[in-house]
Amino acid sequence: MRALSLALLATVAATPLASPLAAQSVDRDAVTRIIDEGTNQSEVMPIAQHLTDVIGPRLTNSPGMRQAEEWTQSKFREWGLKNVHKEGFEFGRGWWIVSSSVRMVTPRPIQLTAIPIAWTPGTNGTVTAPVIVAPMSKEADFARYRGQLAGKIVMVTQPDTGSEPDRPAFRRLSQQELADQDFFEAPVNDPDAADRRLKRLDFSLKLDAFLKSEGAVAMATMSSRDGMLLHGSGYLFGRDQTPATPGIEIAAEDYRRLARLARVGQAPTLEVTSNVRFDDSDVQAYNILADIPGTDPKAGYVMAGAHLDSWAAGDGASDNAAGSAVVMEAARILSQMGVRPKRTIRFALWNGEEQGLLGSLAYIEQHIATRAPAATGPTTGLARFYGWTSRWPITKKPGYDQLAAYFNLDNGSGKIRGIYAENNQAAVPIFREWFAPFQAMGAGTVAMRRTSSTDHYFFQSIGLQGFQFIQDPLDYGSRIHHTNADTFDHMKGEDLRQASIIMASFLLNAANADKPLPKPPLPRQPKVTDPYAWPKAED
Amino acid sequence: MRALSLALLATVAATPLASPLAAQSVDRDAVTRIIDEGTNQSEVMPIAQHLTDVIGPRLTNSPGMRQAEEWTQSKFREWGLKNVHKEGFEFGRGWWIVSSSVRMVTPRPIQLTAIPIAWTPGTNGTVTAPVIVAPMSKEADFARYRGQLAGKIVMVTQPDTGSEPDRPAFRRLSQQELADQDFFEAPVNDPDAADRRLKRLDFSLKLDAFLKSEGAVAMATMSSRDGMLLHGSGYLFGRDQTPATPGIEIAAEDYRRLARLARVGQAPTLEVTSNVRFDDSDVQAYNILADIPGTDPKAGYVMAGAHLDSWAAGDGASDNAAGSAVVMEAARILSQMGVRPKRTIRFALWNGEEQGLLGSLAYIEQHIATRAPAATGPTTGLARFYGWTSRWPITKKPGYDQLAAYFNLDNGSGKIRGIYAENNQAAVPIFREWFAPFQAMGAGTVAMRRTSSTDHYFFQSIGLQGFQFIQDPLDYGSRIHHTNADTFDHMKGEDLRQASIIMASFLLNAANADKPLPKPPLPRQPKVTDPYAWPKAED
Repeated sequence: MRALSLALLATVAATPLASPLAAQSVDRDAVTRIIDEGTNQSEVMPIAQHLTDVIGPRLTNSPGMRQAEEWTQSKFREWGLKNVHKEGFEFGRGWWIVSSSVRMVTPRPIQLTAIPIAWTPGTNGTVTAPVIVAPMSKEADFARYRGQLAGKIVMVTQPDTGSEPDRPAFRRLSQQELADQDFFEAPVNDPDAADRRLKRLDFSLKLDAFLKSEGAVAMATMSSRDGMLLHGSGYLFGRDQTPATPGIEIAAEDYRRLARLARVGQAPTLEVTSNVRFDDSDVQAYNILADIPGTDPKAGYVMAGAHLDSWAAGDGASDNAAGSAVVMEAARILSQMGVRPKRTIRFALWNGEEQGLLGSLAYIEQHIATRAPAATGPTTGLARFYGWTSRWPITKKPGYDQLAAYFNLDNGSGKIRGIYAENNQAAVPIFREWFAPFQAMGAGTVAMRRTSSTDHYFFQSIGLQGFQFIQDPLDYGSRIHHTNADTFDHMKGEDLRQASIIMASFLLNAANADKPLPKPPLPRQPKVTDPYAWPKAED
Repeated sequence: MRALSLALLATVAATPLASPLAAQSVDRDAVTRIIDEGTNQSEVMPIAQHLTDVIGPRLTNSPGMRQAEEWTQSKFREWGLKNVHKEGFEFGRGWWIVSSSVRMVTPRPIQLTAIPIAWTPGTNGTVTAPVIVAPMSKEADFARYRGQLAGKIVMVTQPDTGSEPDRPAFRRLSQQELADQDFFEAPVNDPDAADRRLKRLDFSLKLDAFLKSEGAVAMATMSSRDGMLLHGSGYLFGRDQTPATPGIEIAAEDYRRLARLARVGQAPTLEVTSNVRFDDSDVQAYNILADIPGTDPKAGYVMAGAHLDSWAAGDGASDNAAGSAVVMEAARILSQMGVRPKRTIRFALWNGEEQGLLGSLAYIEQHIATRAPAATGPTTGLARFYGWTSRWPITKKPGYDQLAAYFNLDNGSGKIRGIYAENNQAAVPIFREWFAPFQAMGAGTVAMRRTSSTDHYFFQSIGLQGFQFIQDPLDYGSRIHHTNADTFDHMKGEDLRQASIIMASFLLNAANADKPLPKPPLPRQPKVTDPYAWPKAED
């Protein structure tokens, strides 16, 4: 009944038009100047190009990310931002690809499409070995292949039969699809989720130990996307976690062919060269911060954020040079306009997002609030992330009440179409007012639903006003997200200029509003009363 | 007026239901037996897998195609087909890829996604050189880059800004889309088309000569598809046409990045290894032919055909192991059933289709009809194809009147949804009858339109009964056609079994029909009376 009544409330709250009276509360003169600066003088695409074409992939602690950490600070300083600095947190190893090649040499020559898996060791030259198809996703699978893996390239993913993508690769949200975002999802308490995830991470380590003990020469996984796209994502970045066995991800078409050939005849032989490098000179990763100082030191601050780090396969363009460039451009626009807001406006470029929102989590733990430490299990690497939201109590720091709003951008390079209200009913009418000037730019939906998976999440989890925008998907989900095709040319100038303008406007509104954005209730430990609502143990 | 009245006629003729009376003319007992053999005993997928996974790409005159020529004959013999043989025609050089690698080495290392262009020479080891963006599509462009190309990798394609694919990658035809195929297109007489195409081919040779004279080290083109897909198509396969300069096709995302980097800073340096092989031991390509003999030697023959050759980037699965496997499976089904048709049923696996329907053209010239030789210009390589349909007169050979029907399959691996009537009004009611048993399998549309681009085309062009089927597109057009993703796992067993059944049934109907399928009028040299209907000189 609770879910139903709140859902009805959400529907009522979602009428699409801001009232004429409410719209007056936005400084429309400032909006006009933001639009002028953000269109005619825009630098968002040159910024995005430098981050992608010139710097390239920005895997946390890789040379690309180190370069991006320095370059973004220099840009903030060049634009006159204050308090520009980096804040470190322990992360792990630097890693990057120098060159790589995977070829099938028997039964016939094919240059395969493949990529080294992040943070796996190289092959130390070229290794030539037969494959064995040995899908393993849990420890119980090891027994089946014990004694068969020595000297082999072990194909650990279960091959499938291919996808039949029935939606256009490139999409913009229709009015109906925007309206469909406006739903209330009852909170699900899943106290075992963290344990299950840790178990999966733990399995990666156990699989590597098994492969090592069996004498496998390399591990091969199958790309999760068809059409020769690659990802190369890997999570064993901790100082003591590096696998013993080189890992490569093979394009789905190529992987399936190897598996089929192994079934109908002699196992194919591959020639693998993975030439990668590690750098342990600094195990800290750094968030980048920059301020436009507020005029009222007691009024606190508002913040925009996007993660600057990326995966290694493409150039981290839609994920998330796009969001980083928008945050930077919003800073440039507001700084160039010489705004003197009541509250400080802070710009954050997070690090380690792809490995578990680690940069924004570090910021929160340093400045805003801590939660009880994990009762058991590892606390380094990806494990830091798991379970953080289900540990109690939450202990506020003095900075807790200073944050008046946080806006995140990390849903690709599509333009802003609206914002997720994250179940924060009181924020809905305010966002409606702030969007009123941007109806003609296609933005205005205020959708009730909660979202996760990016850097506003931990802010939300401690009762702060963390939000992220609804963006047009473009080809992000279909073929760009984490792939080798995530390059500059899948970003759209018109879209990123629009997003920069709206981001700047929201920040200025939030910084000058009479009151901070309303806070949701401080989360308390949930009481689970509906056993049937629990998720299955195996998910 | 002529176009209009014929269009109306087409609409009337296209009512979707076969009359109950007409449906009686199909031997439904035979259909039931074909369905049993083609489902429960089907071998179409093992055949398709052997052609793709095991043999792999079948570029005309490459080792893969030589292997396929032998293997398909052995299968036909194994199934008891008669008169199994190959027929040669002069083609050109064999060529294949042993290994290849294209890396950006400055300003930062990236393993690029790239492929050698068919029939271009290798690099003889590894070459390292800077790129230059020099888009050239006509001779007049040469002047702009003269003196700048020495020692460079020349990027000859004009970079663009990327695609926004707004249709699903994987599609089946709706009833509306099927109905939309049923249109009459007025014939367009374009006497200059052949000259324009020859000019483009000629330009490839001139570009190569220019690159050689300027001292370029390699030529790079941009993939025509986004999303890291590659094709590697090239047309200079003639014995005396091999370019002097190695050619590579680079994935669109990678190519555009190179072009952008060259614009904003120092031109990137690439390290290119193209390890390819030529084979001139036999310049003939071979069509494969096999018969189920007819009982009436005077009744002529009916034929099914598909091209066995492919491009080199993928495994030539949807294009056209699919069609070849269907033709072979239809042969197996009918042979296994022990049919004794009135007319001979011939099965043809064409060669050199990808370079201009050269195999089916050779068959026609050898057995069916010739046309006047080209007045001017080259007559070897791809040039053989251009202009053939606009040369007069047509000179019939004795075999002309023996062909009672030709059915081609070459539109990917989707199931058969209908057939193109190619403006042959008299064939429409007959095809409706033949499709009557297959309504429940989703096939039945008889669409008036004419089509080209595959091996029924030259039969049509001399007034013979050459047809091809309408097939569900699946992901053929979006990402498979001629790409490195054209592998076995994009073929669908249910679809190919259905197509094999319908192909077998159509052949049996055509072989046993009282009369041959009606011939269209013998084409005569068109009189062009509408000057405004002429195509532009520059297309």
